[in-house]
Amino acid sequence: MQLIRHPASPILKPKPLNDWEALNVFNCGVVYFNDLFHMFYRAQGVDYVSRIGYAVSADGVHFNRFEQPVLSPQDEWETRGVEDPRITYLADEGRFIMAYTAYSPLGITPMFAASTNLITWRRIGPLIVGEDNKDHVLFPRQIGGRYVTLHRRPPSIWIAYSDDLKNWDDFRVVMSPRPGNWDCRRVGAGGVPVETEHGWLVLYHGYDDEFVYRFGACLLDLEDPTQVIARPHECILEPRETWEFKGDVPHAIFSAANPVVDGTVYVYYGGADRVIGLATCALDEILGWVTHDE
Amino acid sequence: MQLIRHPASPILKPKPLNDWEALNVFNCGVVYFNDLFHMFYRAQGVDYVSRIGYAVSADGVHFNRFEQPVLSPQDEWETRGVEDPRITYLADEGRFIMAYTAYSPLGITPMFAASTNLITWRRIGPLIVGEDNKDHVLFPRQIGGRYVTLHRRPPSIWIAYSDDLKNWDDFRVVMSPRPGNWDCRRVGAGGVPVETEHGWLVLYHGYDDEFVYRFGACLLDLEDPTQVIARPHECILEPRETWEFKGDVPHAIFSAANPVVDGTVYVYYGGADRVIGLATCALDEILGWVTHDE
Repeated sequence: MQLIRHPASPILKPKPLNDWEALNVFNCGVVYFNDLFHMFYRAQGVDYVSRIGYAVSADGVHFNRFEQPVLSPQDEWETRGVEDPRITYLADEGRFIMAYTAYSPLGITPMFAASTNLITWRRIGPLIVGEDNKDHVLFPRQIGGRYVTLHRRPPSIWIAYSDDLKNWDDFRVVMSPRPGNWDCRRVGAGGVPVETEHGWLVLYHGYDDEFVYRFGACLLDLEDPTQVIARPHECILEPRETWEFKGDVPHAIFSAANPVVDGTVYVYYGGADRVIGLATCALDEILGWVTHDE
Repeated sequence: MQLIRHPASPILKPKPLNDWEALNVFNCGVVYFNDLFHMFYRAQGVDYVSRIGYAVSADGVHFNRFEQPVLSPQDEWETRGVEDPRITYLADEGRFIMAYTAYSPLGITPMFAASTNLITWRRIGPLIVGEDNKDHVLFPRQIGGRYVTLHRRPPSIWIAYSDDLKNWDDFRVVMSPRPGNWDCRRVGAGGVPVETEHGWLVLYHGYDDEFVYRFGACLLDLEDPTQVIARPHECILEPRETWEFKGDVPHAIFSAANPVVDGTVYVYYGGADRVIGLATCALDEILGWVTHDE
């Protein structure tokens, strides 16, 4: 099974006249709420500092963006940028959680922030400090009475648990690279896990010895998401378009968003760290494929 | 009593590189919701077609705007523009109503539209057709089991009632110009009436024989808003700044927004049909002045 690129892709491009997003707009989180696709995208000007912009769309394809970012570097942990937002809606609490990566000479730090209006964000704190850790994304509900997040300790996808989104423990490996496969070097989670009757559908990225990024899909157990129920060998998208090959990081496609709207999975992804593309599939189709492929 | 101009005024200016708002940004509606000021502003490029842009702010002073308008002309009634939005939040229904003026060679038409997310708007229909009528604004709750709107049949402020926001009846005069005063030629409602223990606080504009616009304030009876309880003789703001004198319509200050946040009345207004200014006062202060001035 392969995702189908939307013909309007890339659907968001750098805006040359806006300093902060003049060079690159790429990895983005997207949450569907109140009949709208709310996109939070990583943007860079020629200073290569990442800021997070906000755009909104009724159809998921045509986005209207703000002239100023909604999240910018704030302290010494973020001087080089705030990156790769993933947005989880906690329906039970009526609030949104942004998982993003803080970057500075001090290193990279997986951070969480919260909002009730999607515009103003309050920092909660880091998942962990002092190690190479990113690609974290919060599950959309508590599991076993605790918050759960995927994250990435190279080269694998890990999990962690928390009672308050501030203190995290029970760090465990969920899924590692597969030797000889497209995901043989590193893997990292995509967008917010999708709850289905078969399990948590998790899209993820991986790359190989040639540093070519591809997307895959797997299923995690609903009540114990450390358990991988299914993980097909094939990828579901690989670089093919010029704007996926050429850019600031060639052959990098990177997704942090896979909202499901009316039975369709909308996979938004950065193309070569320069533009944002959209590829889709039917939820039923990918679930059928994931559960029966192996 | 006089409103105090915020020193950052004008707080929104035309954006030369955006065609649709390159020349003028002026009359705006502002609703405070979910800890944010949501502004809907009339904008014109050099074609003089009015479109409605959207901007948002946490502090009421610094706004972040979308690159594209949220409401644009749609049919033969709107070919020359959509103008002067006033935004009412119907808390009981969880939805927003925009009162705006449609303009075309067919004339001007006071229109209503609805939204639950402030971004996508669905037209409801006109208050009335075939007459010179605008400056309409919906009360924020039903009164006596019916929706109520102020509107303007020249030269006075009128009222009308409806069960469904589509069919309006019981048209009556509420308030007329006062000979020899600053509001001797025409009057029209400002932003959404503010419910207080003393009555509905209504800000309004008026102009005199020199076509100088000024703002005034009055109180309407809570249960029978056709009854004017108080209406001081003095105005509360008159043109003084260069950007209020000079622009597309000199000496025109025009407000369609007076949200109350933490006890402060935020009066947003178009300055000379070119920029947007902000002036404020304490709600207690203006209420004291309105109720005791006469």
